[in-house]
Amino acid sequence: MYFNEEHQALRRTVRKFIDTEINPYMDQWEQTTAPLHELFKKMGDLGLLGIRYEEKYGGMGLDYWFETVFLEELGHIAGMGVSTAICVQTHMATPAIAEFGSEYLKETYLRPAIAGEMVSAIAVTEPDAGSDVAAIKTRARRDGDHYLINGSKLYITNGVQADFLTLLARTSDEPGHHSFGLFVVPTNLPGFSVGKKLDKVGLRSSDTALLHFDDVPVPAQNLIGQEGEGFIMQMKQFQHERFCTLPSAVTMCEDMIKMTMEHLRQRVVFGKPLATRQVLRHRMVDWLTEIEALRHLTYHIVRMKQAGQDATREVSMGKLMAGRLVRNVADGCVQMHGGMGFINETLIARCFRDSRVLSIGAGADEVMSEVIARLSGF
Amino acid sequence: MYFNEEHQALRRTVRKFIDTEINPYMDQWEQTTAPLHELFKKMGDLGLLGIRYEEKYGGMGLDYWFETVFLEELGHIAGMGVSTAICVQTHMATPAIAEFGSEYLKETYLRPAIAGEMVSAIAVTEPDAGSDVAAIKTRARRDGDHYLINGSKLYITNGVQADFLTLLARTSDEPGHHSFGLFVVPTNLPGFSVGKKLDKVGLRSSDTALLHFDDVPVPAQNLIGQEGEGFIMQMKQFQHERFCTLPSAVTMCEDMIKMTMEHLRQRVVFGKPLATRQVLRHRMVDWLTEIEALRHLTYHIVRMKQAGQDATREVSMGKLMAGRLVRNVADGCVQMHGGMGFINETLIARCFRDSRVLSIGAGADEVMSEVIARLSGF
Amino acid sequence: MYFNEEHQALRRTVRKFIDTEINPYMDQWEQTTAPLHELFKKMGDLGLLGIRYEEKYGGMGLDYWFETVFLEELGHIAGMGVSTAICVQTHMATPAIAEFGSEYLKETYLRPAIAGEMVSAIAVTEPDAGSDVAAIKTRARRDGDHYLINGSKLYITNGVQADFLTLLARTSDEPGHHSFGLFVVPTNLPGFSVGKKLDKVGLRSSDTALLHFDDVPVPAQNLIGQEGEGFIMQMKQFQHERFCTLPSAVTMCEDMIKMTMEHLRQRVVFGKPLATRQVLRHRMVDWLTEIEALRHLTYHIVRMKQAGQDATREVSMGKLMAGRLVRNVADGCVQMHGGMGFINETLIARCFRDSRVLSIGAGADEVMSEVIARLSGF
Amino acid sequence: MYFNEEHQALRRTVRKFIDTEINPYMDQWEQTTAPLHELFKKMGDLGLLGIRYEEKYGGMGLDYWFETVFLEELGHIAGMGVSTAICVQTHMATPAIAEFGSEYLKETYLRPAIAGEMVSAIAVTEPDAGSDVAAIKTRARRDGDHYLINGSKLYITNGVQADFLTLLARTSDEPGHHSFGLFVVPTNLPGFSVGKKLDKVGLRSSDTALLHFDDVPVPAQNLIGQEGEGFIMQMKQFQHERFCTLPSAVTMCEDMIKMTMEHLRQRVVFGKPLATRQVLRHRMVDWLTEIEALRHLTYHIVRMKQAGQDATREVSMGKLMAGRLVRNVADGCVQMHGGMGFINETLIARCFRDSRVLSIGAGADEVMSEVIARLSGF
Repeated sequence: MYFNEEHQALRRTVRKFIDTEINPYMDQWEQTTAPLHELFKKMGDLGLLGIRYEEKYGGMGLDYWFETVFLEELGHIAGMGVSTAICVQTHMATPAIAEFGSEYLKETYLRPAIAGEMVSAIAVTEPDAGSDVAAIKTRARRDGDHYLINGSKLYITNGVQADFLTLLARTSDEPGHHSFGLFVVPTNLPGFSVGKKLDKVGLRSSDTALLHFDDVPVPAQNLIGQEGEGFIMQMKQFQHERFCTLPSAVTMCEDMIKMTMEHLRQRVVFGKPLATRQVLRHRMVDWLTEIEALRHLTYHIVRMKQAGQDATREVSMGKLMAGRLVRNVADGCVQMHGGMGFINETLIARCFRDSRVLSIGAGADEVMSEVIARLSGF
Repeated sequence: MYFNEEHQALRRTVRKFIDTEINPYMDQWEQTTAPLHELFKKMGDLGLLGIRYEEKYGGMGLDYWFETVFLEELGHIAGMGVSTAICVQTHMATPAIAEFGSEYLKETYLRPAIAGEMVSAIAVTEPDAGSDVAAIKTRARRDGDHYLINGSKLYITNGVQADFLTLLARTSDEPGHHSFGLFVVPTNLPGFSVGKKLDKVGLRSSDTALLHFDDVPVPAQNLIGQEGEGFIMQMKQFQHERFCTLPSAVTMCEDMIKMTMEHLRQRVVFGKPLATRQVLRHRMVDWLTEIEALRHLTYHIVRMKQAGQDATREVSMGKLMAGRLVRNVADGCVQMHGGMGFINETLIARCFRDSRVLSIGAGADEVMSEVIARLSGF
Repeated sequence: MYFNEEHQALRRTVRKFIDTEINPYMDQWEQTTAPLHELFKKMGDLGLLGIRYEEKYGGMGLDYWFETVFLEELGHIAGMGVSTAICVQTHMATPAIAEFGSEYLKETYLRPAIAGEMVSAIAVTEPDAGSDVAAIKTRARRDGDHYLINGSKLYITNGVQADFLTLLARTSDEPGHHSFGLFVVPTNLPGFSVGKKLDKVGLRSSDTALLHFDDVPVPAQNLIGQEGEGFIMQMKQFQHERFCTLPSAVTMCEDMIKMTMEHLRQRVVFGKPLATRQVLRHRMVDWLTEIEALRHLTYHIVRMKQAGQDATREVSMGKLMAGRLVRNVADGCVQMHGGMGFINETLIARCFRDSRVLSIGAGADEVMSEVIARLSGF
Repeated sequence: MYFNEEHQALRRTVRKFIDTEINPYMDQWEQTTAPLHELFKKMGDLGLLGIRYEEKYGGMGLDYWFETVFLEELGHIAGMGVSTAICVQTHMATPAIAEFGSEYLKETYLRPAIAGEMVSAIAVTEPDAGSDVAAIKTRARRDGDHYLINGSKLYITNGVQADFLTLLARTSDEPGHHSFGLFVVPTNLPGFSVGKKLDKVGLRSSDTALLHFDDVPVPAQNLIGQEGEGFIMQMKQFQHERFCTLPSAVTMCEDMIKMTMEHLRQRVVFGKPLATRQVLRHRMVDWLTEIEALRHLTYHIVRMKQAGQDATREVSMGKLMAGRLVRNVADGCVQMHGGMGFINETLIARCFRDSRVLSIGAGADEVMSEVIARLSGF
């Protein structure tokens, strides 16, 4: 109803790519981390890493509806680690370059990111600054035609494999939101090091790292936009990051329900398939209802974005709802799988472990609630 | 974003009507029941009782988007008793006549219903048949060119004031869904009586009755459509009834939140306005998020209907979600009002009492869950 | 297991009294308000209004276990209005007199309250001071050997019928908790008036009033304990008020479940009794589990009180849990009754309306949460 | 209040053992599985594996209150894998031997189990029989003075390290509950093999296995009790298994809250410690309230058991409540830890992964609900 043949063509391309180039390797990548350079190159060749980006830099120049199709399909990946790694590349580390970056930055970083020739990461969170972004301590000190970066960044997805980071650093001690710069930091610079790769509950096919910066000399031309506007640009970039969750959440929930329903149909307990149990069926109905509502909230946001409206309030609502819903569905489907749901080799166990991060990362539920309250005039 | 100037003009008309002709009288009507003949006549004069119905019979001939505007505005009425009474007239007792009725029935009953000259009610539920509609026992026995109706109908909104009833009766003892007829039953026929007006927890501005039928002779031409198809037609008519809840629920929830927020801003406890309390603000955020999602699920259903698609599954989801949401918001807003919320003269207390019926009437939550499960292939 | 033959004898006495002297009149009293002078006299004759009070003043001199038996049985009353009216007399308006009052006050007010010859009320809440007790504005100004009382009290149960009020008033403008006096105020003094009897959502068998005090001259000897200690004494008295809810809640929930289960066994829908539906049975199991847990939390509190320990934290937990549980069970049982649950003549509808106040009165849920947090070191 | 000096002495012993002999090794054991022979020997030397068992076989001969002290302390172990492994030895695999076993079985298996010289496991669950125990297919066929065991058992905790299994097998094809035998099966018999050690979401310090039985010749004297009574005995043994969860759950929840509160006090976000946030504090209050209620439901069960009463209904309630509560607290505390909660090296992440099994193992929530419904007369 909402998608035409062109949309569906993109959908089929993404679906086929996932079915042939990603899902067959997921069990292995959960052990070893997905090889992003190899994977992104293949995606870049198909144009999948630049759906909304300008054709001038190798993008497809399509709109938010095509992006939504792409994100919906990412929900079919058998593990959120890889979909997260991809979204870092497409929605977290590059939107600010595309929107505010100089021609030089677009040519040097955006173009290869779209082509899948460079892997990127977004470096904002720090040991003492998560949802409270303005509390970051990493400093960028101007030194001639460089900035020297000092500090640490934590929970950085793709941090081990990244060729460049989009990094937020404090450029002045002034309080307020105009004391930050957003930089493109190549990881081959001296002074950069990966502190450690983190052992996470889920998202095990992606690498997440603690990064250290010790007088890393970043060329001044790697500053995105104006020096004092990094925080503001990152807040805008966050909207892309948060929106990612929504279309994928819908698909992932539907997939979990489908696989669980198949299990319930086959599993006979006390003489009848579990699928006949009313309490299980009604639980599924509650999830399906929320999924349907989330889908249409998502499409509403797409329309707002297409119309150039600020959707911060609605995106925050969607992020809050999506995080809770995926976790709830994953947890409930584990329950319906019984003992199998507790064994790591089952996909539902992976979904359960992966999904836990959704209410924490990219702005915790409580932070989303504060944003929504504020934007609702409370 | 979704409504043009014509929609907004209708919205203003309805809003103004409610503000001047309904809300000033609500406190009184809660005591005495709203005078439907008088009220409907005024609405009929403005065309508000036939928004989607053919101009040929006095309707406006508009589409589902206009209908949705109308229903959204009904949510502003200060008491669900009157909005329910109106919806009975527009969405519960007349759609089957408009869709399946003969020219005679349309001229004789639909036209005056649209004009507000006749008050109607829908008579389906019985003492032993609520959500399980096929269990009804009221019989319609063919006797020459009449049907003789015998039985009782319970919880019939507008039952005391109605000029005619759209009544479902069993026409044969055959099991299955093809043994029922849907009739237009004038209430001035011999053998019809109002057993009693029910004393309800809420919806006190509307009358709800137990009705008795003792050999009531209904002319055969008052049969809607085919004799065996009453159940099927009523199931279709139910879709209109169930949909009504959705747009009004959204508006009603927003109004409750607004009035509660105003209270919280004024109420100072332990030295600070209650509006500063994080637990209260986050509760409101959860409601607003669900409201926004319900709104867009609603608009999705409108699009489906506009496209001629069967929206039974989505309407059932919306009905389930709306009923729970309104109750939850009403209950939570009562809590935020403290003692005032327990006093009948406050509007929020009325909302609390009124809203309880939403998960029971027009197909209880559990019935909606079964419908959704079945239509989802479970 | 926890009650001996003496306890059970008291239980039988209370149960029989409720079955013969209260429940047969409840439908009527819901319309007219229970006649407390008549009812309390009968209870006083049986000793039921002074179970824990000293025999010297007509009490039974029994311990907290007997009190708990009494309160458990009150839960069988077919409407919380009357059980509330009784608890006002036994647990809200008299404990401070018994614990801190002079011999004169005990002889003059406690003795007739125990005998059922005087009806009492507790006058603390004001239009601008609910859970935040220290915000009360009613003043008691010393004037010779009297105090002149000025102000208003709101939501005062038994306020219309009371012979005396236990009233908290500000005696000084000093901030802090030592600026209040607790007074016994006879209602036949000049300057006292009942502003209005409130029209409540529930508890309709009890009267609840707005009271006005215009230079009411209360003899100085009617001060309970020390002048500056009224707030402290009232905080202690609140512990009795709050505890009341717990044992009755357990019984009331069990009764609601029992009556609902009987309904479900008889109600046949889609060919089978509703009692066979798994979703309904599992909901009941959840309630029963919480009820059992609440019962044993209650008995733990009784043991703490018997041992002379401060149970404020545990009573607050019990109050919080009991309020939510009764509301949840009442709401859920209404749902299981279908349309009948929305008709005032059914007991479950009354339970639904009555129970709403439990999370508001005697310290709202949010206030209980703050108390528990503080006493837990948060 | 409920424990005397002797109880507290046991408590100190267990606590000290955990603090010195278990918790310092937990991080390592999560990687490698706890070495049960070594660990149990130390516990056996202190008498901790036979608290309720007869002194005649090396037990302490103490009552259910001492057992409860022991189980409460197990909740302090920094990972449910080890506490589960211990409970298998004390509450899952040996109670039936102690209650129904011959002198030979007690001397040969119970005594060394109590001494910590043999590790045991309970082998009931199968690939196609989890909560529906009667669906097991493993057969025990009498062959002279042996039984030949054939089949598979799944999710068997301690299965890799066990010296003997308490195994339920079908001894006849008759339907009903009298066709099963409960056997003590030494794992050094021919035909026994460990299919694989399972890779679980949590409980990683314990081993859980798939076991195969291929004509394993078990001496007839290893049958516990009567041949047809295995199912009945196992149902009784399940009561011990299920009860284990309760006291540990209370302690574990309190520990999670304590460690989370410490985190919240230190973590400054938006200028204030997270511990000041009302939404977080109120969430904790809700958990504390449920914990307190669960504790006293637990003690009630202890009293029932001490009095020789059947506590199946109450144990099932406790199991249902404990499983949900621990999961809920673990999940909520992860949320409060933010990104740290998603990193496996934090204890709260381990608690989150471990706790998921509590609503699945030892009778899933849904099975508990069915048991409670049945025993409540529904």
